[in-house]
Amino acid sequence: MGQNSTEWAGVAQSGPEWARIGESTQISLFDFYDPCAQRKGYPFNLELDVGPVIQFQNFHVNNIGDPFMESNYGIHSRKFEVAVLDWFANFWELPKDQSWGYVTSGGTEGNLHGLLVGRELFPDGIIYASKDSHYSVFKAAKMYRAQCIKISTSIYGEMNYDDFSYKLLQNSGRPAIVNVNIGTTMRGGVDDVDEVIRTLKTCGFDSRFYIHCDGALGGLMLPFIKQEPKLTFKKSIGSISVSGHKLLGCPTPCGVVVNRLKDINLVMSTNIEYVASRDATITGSRNGHAPIIMWYTLKCLGYNGIRMKVTTCIRKAEYLEFLLKKKGVSTLLNPGSSTVIFERPKDEVFVRKWQLACEGNLAHVVVMPNVSIRHLFRFVDELAENRYIMLHDKEISTPCVAADIGPDMKYYHSVLLRNISYMISGFRQSIFKEARVHITRTSLGNPILAD
Amino acid sequence: MGQNSTEWAGVAQSGPEWARIGESTQISLFDFYDPCAQRKGYPFNLELDVGPVIQFQNFHVNNIGDPFMESNYGIHSRKFEVAVLDWFANFWELPKDQSWGYVTSGGTEGNLHGLLVGRELFPDGIIYASKDSHYSVFKAAKMYRAQCIKISTSIYGEMNYDDFSYKLLQNSGRPAIVNVNIGTTMRGGVDDVDEVIRTLKTCGFDSRFYIHCDGALGGLMLPFIKQEPKLTFKKSIGSISVSGHKLLGCPTPCGVVVNRLKDINLVMSTNIEYVASRDATITGSRNGHAPIIMWYTLKCLGYNGIRMKVTTCIRKAEYLEFLLKKKGVSTLLNPGSSTVIFERPKDEVFVRKWQLACEGNLAHVVVMPNVSIRHLFRFVDELAENRYIMLHDKEISTPCVAADIGPDMKYYHSVLLRNISYMISGFRQSIFKEARVHITRTSLGNPILAD
Repeated sequence: MGQNSTEWAGVAQSGPEWARIGESTQISLFDFYDPCAQRKGYPFNLELDVGPVIQFQNFHVNNIGDPFMESNYGIHSRKFEVAVLDWFANFWELPKDQSWGYVTSGGTEGNLHGLLVGRELFPDGIIYASKDSHYSVFKAAKMYRAQCIKISTSIYGEMNYDDFSYKLLQNSGRPAIVNVNIGTTMRGGVDDVDEVIRTLKTCGFDSRFYIHCDGALGGLMLPFIKQEPKLTFKKSIGSISVSGHKLLGCPTPCGVVVNRLKDINLVMSTNIEYVASRDATITGSRNGHAPIIMWYTLKCLGYNGIRMKVTTCIRKAEYLEFLLKKKGVSTLLNPGSSTVIFERPKDEVFVRKWQLACEGNLAHVVVMPNVSIRHLFRFVDELAENRYIMLHDKEISTPCVAADIGPDMKYYHSVLLRNISYMISGFRQSIFKEARVHITRTSLGNPILAD
Repeated sequence: MGQNSTEWAGVAQSGPEWARIGESTQISLFDFYDPCAQRKGYPFNLELDVGPVIQFQNFHVNNIGDPFMESNYGIHSRKFEVAVLDWFANFWELPKDQSWGYVTSGGTEGNLHGLLVGRELFPDGIIYASKDSHYSVFKAAKMYRAQCIKISTSIYGEMNYDDFSYKLLQNSGRPAIVNVNIGTTMRGGVDDVDEVIRTLKTCGFDSRFYIHCDGALGGLMLPFIKQEPKLTFKKSIGSISVSGHKLLGCPTPCGVVVNRLKDINLVMSTNIEYVASRDATITGSRNGHAPIIMWYTLKCLGYNGIRMKVTTCIRKAEYLEFLLKKKGVSTLLNPGSSTVIFERPKDEVFVRKWQLACEGNLAHVVVMPNVSIRHLFRFVDELAENRYIMLHDKEISTPCVAADIGPDMKYYHSVLLRNISYMISGFRQSIFKEARVHITRTSLGNPILAD
């Protein structure tokens, strides 16, 4: 293996002029080393060393077809994929023999799959999604030719259940396919799945609904947070999807979608003789390296490792919010979220340098495990300096974000409960060691670890 | 980077019982080393050494959004992606300023994208696809709620244009979205794009059609073969997709789809502020390692390297067919194809051992660059032995495949033309050296290299 590529390379010099790839464009493999040093906005964890599994990149590993069925194609990582799926089925409390799923190419594919199952179960169903939902949800509706109704949200990015109820009643004749956000992209807002189900039942949608939970980031975090509504298949939900390249830190976009087996058997079964498997996924030929990397990550971290990562991220996000507020920057942080929203910096060079994801007047930072307290200090200092220059030297006014994030009250909450919860959580020391400061603020929504 | 994973690993021992991934399932990273040694059926090239680019696997490289637009997310390989896309646009003769495309997660995504563009351009269009089309084409029709009409095929897997014409005329009021196969999955059959366009025009579909070319395997081979109808955007086609893990040998499922820029601007533009890009792809967050690997492969091989690979595959496929026929096995090989079809072995253990892709009474071998002549000898010998045992000892009769592949006449063709073409092709020596035999058979359909 491999010798031939050198052999072939000899002839690469000839051939038509246009075919000499890269020579005219002047790009080299080292072009994207630089950007790795600085990034913060997007929720990608760049911490994990996947060294031991990289060796397999020389093999073409293809999990074609259904992960739970044997296929004729031999170089696959199905065992790893099934192990990962079992882990997530357990995590979201779905018995093994009732669960199905697969390792996807990312959050979008998870949403495309979940919503497709919903549409197949209820062909005349309407997709309901809050306006803060990920763009893939609206893309899915367009692709699948399903009517999509947008629900308004609170400033925290959570679905407005009154609006949901109102729109359900307007369309009571048709079943509902609901996209529930477990951490919205921009604000980290969490829709209350219990409230969604209650609303559906109150509006007379007894069993005429399907719920897909888009847990791209929050799907892994929520089960660890006591105060949040529990994310579990014991409730009437149909599917949950999560990203593998965010909190888990897989180096390639990937994710997991878990469904109920009975739904898949009912509507997604097309047997493909050619691959001796069934075609129940969106992409067919699937990256077999992703399940190995996810398996390796789950094995390295373990349940408690992920739990620790989740808590650390939330604590650091709270600390970032504290630092920003201290500098007079308006912020918003949902309880149990690691997404800190603040006013969008006016300097586009700064936005690009720190790779901040922006929407309207807002920017956000998603604190991932690889973001250190030192990073946060540097970021806040630079932001404050940049803001000062904009406000004073260039006389550009700060945007009013009251409409976006509401009057900024949380800062003035009592310090008492927060301190108690810090002591309970047991992670105080590790955080404090790094920060070398005393965090004295708190809010009532402080997350405490679930068992 | 990386130290933390060891640190976290310490806590992995605790946590709930179910969360100890892999311990109960007894799987290890070395589980799938074995199957690599033997495989032949599926068209995956396992030859290329991607060593120099593997180092980047430690980075999360994400080409989120449109490859041709800058995004806020900084660790991407867009430059490599654009270089790859330019290469393919040139290869299929579409001027740079009129082309768009992206590196997909494989052939399926390419088809999903091409057909989606078709459906968006012609919302009430009907998808026409030969019954030998890849399963993703029918999946796309189901997903997109587009009516799909299957066209019958010849025994060579090529579309039956009379049937196509008949079905077009039955639905002359609605536009046509045609999936043209450039190498079908099972038989390597090529639909004649000129004939398809001619049929459409004859039936009065002047500009009311969209053609997507599924060139998963053949899209890279056809332009090198003189006798075949040329695959080019100079004809009225809308998109071409190809797989990167087949002939090119990328170790992860990937591919390329190339579209006309005007179509994308017209129907696929949804600007996503969050990523500061537009959402014109299916999967959104996209594997940024794949374009680097494709770029590296194209750079190593060069135009002539791929050309040489294509010819070698075709020659070896012809030789395999010759060997099989000599053993009395019924076969079929399309001119210019590397897919050899033959009667399905009765022994399922043999099928699984050699990872043969099967359909009905037929099995096939797709000869890829990494398949050596020695491999072919071993395979044919084992197949013949296994067949003998089945026929004589177990008294199982061979299936009659006359209906599937037609009366087997090609073997008796004159040897003259083949010998001449071998001399012209210039690859005679390299093949003969390896085979150490004299190939004396020929057929009229022998491919000669295009300039």
